[in-house]
Amino acid sequence: MSLAGVQALTFDVFGTVVDWRGSIIREGEALGLEVDWAAFADAWRGGYRPSMARVRSGELPWTKLDALHRMILDDLLEKHGISTLSEADKQHWNRVWHRLTPWPDAVPGLTRLRQHYVLATLSNGNVALLTNMAKHGGLPWDCILSAEIVRHYKPDPETYLGAAELLGLQPSEVMMVAAHKADLKAAQAVGLRAAFVPRPLEYGPDIEVDAEPDPSFDIHARDFNDLADQLAR
Amino acid sequence: MSLAGVQALTFDVFGTVVDWRGSIIREGEALGLEVDWAAFADAWRGGYRPSMARVRSGELPWTKLDALHRMILDDLLEKHGISTLSEADKQHWNRVWHRLTPWPDAVPGLTRLRQHYVLATLSNGNVALLTNMAKHGGLPWDCILSAEIVRHYKPDPETYLGAAELLGLQPSEVMMVAAHKADLKAAQAVGLRAAFVPRPLEYGPDIEVDAEPDPSFDIHARDFNDLADQLAR
Repeated sequence: MSLAGVQALTFDVFGTVVDWRGSIIREGEALGLEVDWAAFADAWRGGYRPSMARVRSGELPWTKLDALHRMILDDLLEKHGISTLSEADKQHWNRVWHRLTPWPDAVPGLTRLRQHYVLATLSNGNVALLTNMAKHGGLPWDCILSAEIVRHYKPDPETYLGAAELLGLQPSEVMMVAAHKADLKAAQAVGLRAAFVPRPLEYGPDIEVDAEPDPSFDIHARDFNDLADQLAR
Repeated sequence: MSLAGVQALTFDVFGTVVDWRGSIIREGEALGLEVDWAAFADAWRGGYRPSMARVRSGELPWTKLDALHRMILDDLLEKHGISTLSEADKQHWNRVWHRLTPWPDAVPGLTRLRQHYVLATLSNGNVALLTNMAKHGGLPWDCILSAEIVRHYKPDPETYLGAAELLGLQPSEVMMVAAHKADLKAAQAVGLRAAFVPRPLEYGPDIEVDAEPDPSFDIHARDFNDLADQLAR
């Protein structure tokens, strides 16, 4: 299948570009509280889909991810009996999602890909979160695109179509890059190309992810360096 | 006046960051047609405000700047009796606005400012235009913000307030940087800070611009290097 027409790559971010779990565990451990930070990170992330589902269904009006993260956090702090954090502490801790660390191959792979393609985020993270994260981790995006801009969370089709429209491209000229098959399938359903880059350690060493190759995707890559090799021009 | 709270700088682009007039003249002259390219550039830019006014008033539905530029271009080509361009030529020529050249101080000044602030465009140019221009000219933005995202052209207040909201900041934490006083006054009216960087050559050597200092602005800078000096932390 010819990929010659692809001009832009849009990236899922949490899990695909950055290691949210490891980053949260590391920052949590530095807080000096008696908490199982792996379980805390998993529970925080576990609240992600249900909270977005409430927005996608219309139960909640548009709410940016920072605010959804904070709702889940407040609940978790109560469950874990953590009552020593000030409001400023909580705001800072909620923004740990702005400080997630890229997988080791992410910056070198993106730097190579950027020579030939427009690189944009296409994440459910809000614009400030993604902008601050890029600055923190040195991620060389050309453009920050977000569910917040389109006011639809992935996998709503508006998110992918809105990104192509903002990039001034046809959907077939845009390739979605993600570690999650559902994200890629939703992108393909509205005409985008798809590159699957599984991240076996996204949920930690004990949880197996679905890394099985799927021939319906245009590309299967081991990491972003491999993606850059396969998309070399 | 303390500027300690400023966390992000939002930049007007046409005229403030890039030399639209010189860029269009240079590319026009390379086309090899008998045209007064300075007059052509001025007329193209001259159609900008009236065409946006039709969107701002509601006479036209939301229309991105690429499409407004094309409407003005088609009119100009007819007026200048230029009938030799193919549709592909016209599309390429309309995208000259994606290929404008930065003023010489823009990239070095932005590179310094980026160490201390979030840098975003806040232009009436559409996202693809600004993204392609940044790639072409090496402009180191952290984030591309545009009238297209908010669906309001400057100087509508929604444009400035929408940018602050997307950056996750209070208006007073954002400083608008522009060569045009009306843009800065509109930003200030909704609470943003303002830095005036006049560009005496924006309209060519024969047209004097309003470069008079105005004490109501927080900063008056000669160019982006001077702005970086004044905003050094």
